[in-house]
Amino acid sequence: MKFTLAIHGGAGTRRREAMSPEAEAGYRTGLQHALMSGYRVLKEGGPALEAVTKAVMALEDDPQFNAGRGAVYTSAGTHEMDAAVMEGASRKAGAVAGVMGPRNPVLAARAVMERSENVLLIGEGAMQFCREQGLAFKKAPYFATTERFEALQAELERRRVKGMDMRDDAAKHGTVGAVACDAGGNLAAATSTGGMTGKTPGRVGDCPVFGAGTWADESCAISATGHGEVFIRYAAAHEIASRMRLGKQSLAAAAEAVVAELGALGGSGGLIGVDATGEVALPFNCTGMYRGRIGADGIAWTGIYREPLKAKELSAA
Amino acid sequence: MKFTLAIHGGAGTRRREAMSPEAEAGYRTGLQHALMSGYRVLKEGGPALEAVTKAVMALEDDPQFNAGRGAVYTSAGTHEMDAAVMEGASRKAGAVAGVMGPRNPVLAARAVMERSENVLLIGEGAMQFCREQGLAFKKAPYFATTERFEALQAELERRRVKGMDMRDDAAKHGTVGAVACDAGGNLAAATSTGGMTGKTPGRVGDCPVFGAGTWADESCAISATGHGEVFIRYAAAHEIASRMRLGKQSLAAAAEAVVAELGALGGSGGLIGVDATGEVALPFNCTGMYRGRIGADGIAWTGIYREPLKAKELSAA
Repeated sequence: MKFTLAIHGGAGTRRREAMSPEAEAGYRTGLQHALMSGYRVLKEGGPALEAVTKAVMALEDDPQFNAGRGAVYTSAGTHEMDAAVMEGASRKAGAVAGVMGPRNPVLAARAVMERSENVLLIGEGAMQFCREQGLAFKKAPYFATTERFEALQAELERRRVKGMDMRDDAAKHGTVGAVACDAGGNLAAATSTGGMTGKTPGRVGDCPVFGAGTWADESCAISATGHGEVFIRYAAAHEIASRMRLGKQSLAAAAEAVVAELGALGGSGGLIGVDATGEVALPFNCTGMYRGRIGADGIAWTGIYREPLKAKELSAA
Repeated sequence: MKFTLAIHGGAGTRRREAMSPEAEAGYRTGLQHALMSGYRVLKEGGPALEAVTKAVMALEDDPQFNAGRGAVYTSAGTHEMDAAVMEGASRKAGAVAGVMGPRNPVLAARAVMERSENVLLIGEGAMQFCREQGLAFKKAPYFATTERFEALQAELERRRVKGMDMRDDAAKHGTVGAVACDAGGNLAAATSTGGMTGKTPGRVGDCPVFGAGTWADESCAISATGHGEVFIRYAAAHEIASRMRLGKQSLAAAAEAVVAELGALGGSGGLIGVDATGEVALPFNCTGMYRGRIGADGIAWTGIYREPLKAKELSAA
C-alpha cells in the first residue's frame, strides 16, 4: 500500500537569523503533528480528502500558523478566514471566504462541498450555513494571538509613517495546506488561511479561488501559499495540472517551473503538490516554506529553509 | 485595423415558445446597444479592457439581463452581485463578489484591478472600497424588477411545496459578459452577474473565480455563463487557454470541446471567447445564449437560439 501526504505551514518563514532553536523546534513539532493526523487516516485506508482535512485541522488548531487559531488580523483588527477543499477524481470542491467563527474553516469548506449545491460561500451567508450545519464555532478571543496582534500594530504604524515594508515574508502570506494521494490513488487538496496582516477587509487571496491556490484533478493535487494576487492572475495550480496533462510534464518539472515563473513576476511563495503515483513536489521561491511529507513508512519529514528535509528522529536530536 | 468584440447576455434563454416577437426584439436591441458601446471604444483605437467594460456596463444598465439593474434575487429577497475584469497581456485582474450598491459592478471590479493591490474583494469590504473610490451607488429599488421578484416568489413557492424544478434555464443562470481583441491585438474579458434566482445568500459562482468564469491571457479572453459550480470545478476558462497554448488547439476547437464536456458533466451553459487574431467562438450546450459580435465593419450580429447570427438590419426587419 502506497500513499503520501504533504503539508505546508506557509511560505515564507521567519528570517533565519530571527529563528531560535526553540522556535524552530516548535514549528517542526507542529508540522509533525499535522503529518501524523493525516497519516493515521491514510494508514487505515481512508480517503485522501479526509487526510488533508485532518492535517489542515491540526495546522488550524496550532496558533503558530496563520489559519484558524492564530490567523492574522485585517487592517480593521478583525479576522477574516478563507478555506478550500477539492477532491481529484470527483472534482468535488467547496470553499468559504471571509468567515470569522467556524473553529475550523476547512470543515466549513468541506460542508459546502458535501452538504450544499454550492462551491463557494462567502461572509455572513457562509457563517449562517455553518451554523445550520452545526459546525463548532469559537468567538474572537479563541483565534487571537499576541504575536499576530503586535504584527498588525507594527504594520499599521509603518503605514502611518509611510515606512519601508521591511517585514519578512511570513508577515505577508502565511497559509496552511495539505495534499494527499491515498492508497487507492485518489488525490485531494485543502488550503486554509487568515490572509495577509493588515489586509483590506473583504480581501480574498488565492486560497478559495480554485485553480489558483487550491486544485485537485486526476493528474495532481496542489495547495499554494504566497502572494495570492499573482497566483490568481496566473492560475498557478491549474497551470501545473495543465502542463502535466497537456504538456506531458512531470509534477516536479511543472511545479518547479511555475513557482520559478511566479517568482520572476513578483509572486513570492511556494506550493505543495502530489501526483497519482504519490510523487511529491514542494517548490518555493522565497527564503523558506514550512513544509513536510510522510509516506507509508510513517516517517515524518519536515523542512523550513532551503535544506534537505529532516526526519523526525533527526529534528528531535 | 482589425478588432473584435463579442458579448453574451446569459445562457440559457427563455424557452423558444415563451419568446414573443416583442421580447425577442427587446433582447436583440439590448445586445446591439451593448455591442455598439464597446465598438465605439475599439473604433477609436481604444483598449480591449475599456471596450469590454463599456459593453458590460450597457448590459448591466439594461434590466432585461441578470446583472446590475435587473439582477435576480437571493432566497432572502436581496441582491448580491459579482463582477470581474481581466486584461490578457498584463494579466491584471479585478473582481468583486457579494456586493449590493455599486450601480455598475463591473466598474467596481475594474477599480479593484486598477486602484488597489488586491484582485478580489467581497461583501462589505468591497462596498467600502467602492465608496472610497467614489463609484456611483444606487439603492435597492434601482436594481429591482417585477419580473425577477415574481421569479423569486415562484421559486420559493416551488421549494415550499417541494415541486419539480420546471424553470427554464434563464431563471437559473443568467450572466452578462464581453470579450474583445483590440486593434493592437490586446485581449480582455469582463463578466457580471446577479447569480441564480433564490440562491443561498453568500453563494458565489464562477464569475469572479478567475480561470473559471472569467479569464484573459495572451492566447484568449473568455467570459462564461452557466451552472457556475461546474465551471469552477473544471476551471473552464483556463482549460480553454491551456488547450490553445499547450495543446496547440484553435480557440473554436478548445472552446467547443470544453463546453460540450461541461454539458456532459451537468454543466449547462456557454461562453464567449476571442483569440489574439480576433477570431471568436460562442459555444453553448443549452437551448440558447443571448449573444452577439461586432468587428471593424460595425455590423452588429446577434443571436439567441441555435441559429445563424442576424445582422442588425435583418433583425430590425
